[in-house]
Amino acid sequence: MSDFSNARIVVIGGGTGSFTLLKSLKKHTEHITALVNMVDDGGSTGVLRDELGVLPPGDVRQCLVALSETPLLRDLFSYRFEEGTFAGHAFGNLFMAGLEKVTGSFHEAVEEASRVLNITGAVEPTVLNELRLCVKLPSGKTVRGQNAVDTSNFESSKPDIWLEPMPMVNPAAVKAIDVADLIIIAPGNLYSSLAPALMIAELAEALQHTKAPKLYVCNLVTKPGQTDGFMVSDFASEIERFVGSKLLDYVLYNTREPGHDLLKKYASQGEYWVQVDESILEKAHYRAVGVELVGDIFKPSSKADLLPRTLIRHDSDTVARAIEEIYRGSV
Amino acid sequence: MSDFSNARIVVIGGGTGSFTLLKSLKKHTEHITALVNMVDDGGSTGVLRDELGVLPPGDVRQCLVALSETPLLRDLFSYRFEEGTFAGHAFGNLFMAGLEKVTGSFHEAVEEASRVLNITGAVEPTVLNELRLCVKLPSGKTVRGQNAVDTSNFESSKPDIWLEPMPMVNPAAVKAIDVADLIIIAPGNLYSSLAPALMIAELAEALQHTKAPKLYVCNLVTKPGQTDGFMVSDFASEIERFVGSKLLDYVLYNTREPGHDLLKKYASQGEYWVQVDESILEKAHYRAVGVELVGDIFKPSSKADLLPRTLIRHDSDTVARAIEEIYRGSV
Repeated sequence: MSDFSNARIVVIGGGTGSFTLLKSLKKHTEHITALVNMVDDGGSTGVLRDELGVLPPGDVRQCLVALSETPLLRDLFSYRFEEGTFAGHAFGNLFMAGLEKVTGSFHEAVEEASRVLNITGAVEPTVLNELRLCVKLPSGKTVRGQNAVDTSNFESSKPDIWLEPMPMVNPAAVKAIDVADLIIIAPGNLYSSLAPALMIAELAEALQHTKAPKLYVCNLVTKPGQTDGFMVSDFASEIERFVGSKLLDYVLYNTREPGHDLLKKYASQGEYWVQVDESILEKAHYRAVGVELVGDIFKPSSKADLLPRTLIRHDSDTVARAIEEIYRGSV
Repeated sequence: MSDFSNARIVVIGGGTGSFTLLKSLKKHTEHITALVNMVDDGGSTGVLRDELGVLPPGDVRQCLVALSETPLLRDLFSYRFEEGTFAGHAFGNLFMAGLEKVTGSFHEAVEEASRVLNITGAVEPTVLNELRLCVKLPSGKTVRGQNAVDTSNFESSKPDIWLEPMPMVNPAAVKAIDVADLIIIAPGNLYSSLAPALMIAELAEALQHTKAPKLYVCNLVTKPGQTDGFMVSDFASEIERFVGSKLLDYVLYNTREPGHDLLKKYASQGEYWVQVDESILEKAHYRAVGVELVGDIFKPSSKADLLPRTLIRHDSDTVARAIEEIYRGSV
């Protein structure tokens, strides 16, 4: 069981954090299931969702690309049209939207796209219905929609957050958690990406009952108006609040700060390096593992991208290796 | 050599005439190469060509779909978005356009799409550069662009017609003709579909030198303002004018008229059933073969289609069987 290459691994998240982690993890094991939140409504995905009434393809597309073994189709799925009617749309989003229209089922669309892209492992949406992410602010105002939540100032920490309407869980997502050997909660936006994946009641229940250890890869920087002043343990406790139980066995966090110039650049945008609160982590019910996880500076691949992306990234190969070591030690 | 299932068959054309014939022919032989004109500039294809600067995907897409062995992807490639920004665009056109952008080559895009769609045989563009179809009217006015030509009243029969700029032939198209056992010129619009495929000098030369018999499947109805009053031999002689030589060995034409009501409906739009001029056909240098070729009435599959389609179609299975019989008799 300590053979990582045979371990059944579930990665929960969506977005760029999942994408980079999956790309590296698949070098270690073929048995990966990526569980993806279904609340994305920004950029190309938002337009397709609004205009065509399809489920949000963006995060699923990124995970499919991360797990694909066909370079040319990987490039095609990530390609964003740069001119005219289609400017800013990722081709993969159109592929998913078209397939959902033709099959009448987002789930079938994901299966067919998985086949075409020749992916290692599987990608599963967390739910099968259209959901909106909602946050209630202290002022009494409710923010609805992932993109709106993502760009909101919460005016307080740890806000009320929920999904509308009632989620219809994807049974394949529950099954993946049930039979997993390791559950990874990927780095990502705490409220707009991880919360909507973790707040599905049936998934939270499965996470409580599965025998697999649960590992959370903590973010590198804080998000202004949302996680200001958060240290590693604050991120971990919010993750557990979303699920409703003290589920974490491991928290993997970064110990290496980048150079002063980059920190200053981030600070000018209200983003700060996540500090390590060692005294709290030492007493936590989970094991906190500190490793130098910071990678090179990320360069956006396309000017046509409708969404801004941050510059600092985990070195996902290092993260994957650290995860493998933790897993080996745990079993 | 008389085994049709091993015959290397080249089908020249583009558009719906090629599409329906290819779908039936592939039941008879796996060795089909579809040569497709590259002047399409109407509808979804025209928008992509203008906005993205890609080669016209529409006719190639139709031929790929006809030869595909993967039903779901066939449906996806033919699917037209019905709402919003993308309304009227065939998904397959976006696929070809995206692949051309990613690979930098239309030819590579066709190859990759062929692989994804799991096609029987091959689809080859006639040329590798962007062409415009041009027709000179008696008034002195020049009509430029396939869509404009297609909808023009020529004010005379057998007009001056040419391509701009100089075509850059696709060597794979020449090769396919060189090694073919049978060349079929598909039914289709004489001036907007067949002329631009046949008027490439290197292809015309290859057609003169190949040992394969050349068979033309004649249209069923005339086109107002373009082929008014044309009988079977008129269509055949225009085909030979495009190539610049008396190349035809066989002309396959229909002998069965549909009911009075349908003919009347067509006549109200200036379209008439192509008459058989037997006395001329008897003396022709080619063998004219009359068969009942008319199929059921065609129902357009999608209201979102940007281009109108005609209602009367060849029964392509009957056409394919007739072609097989002619081939067997010829060898």
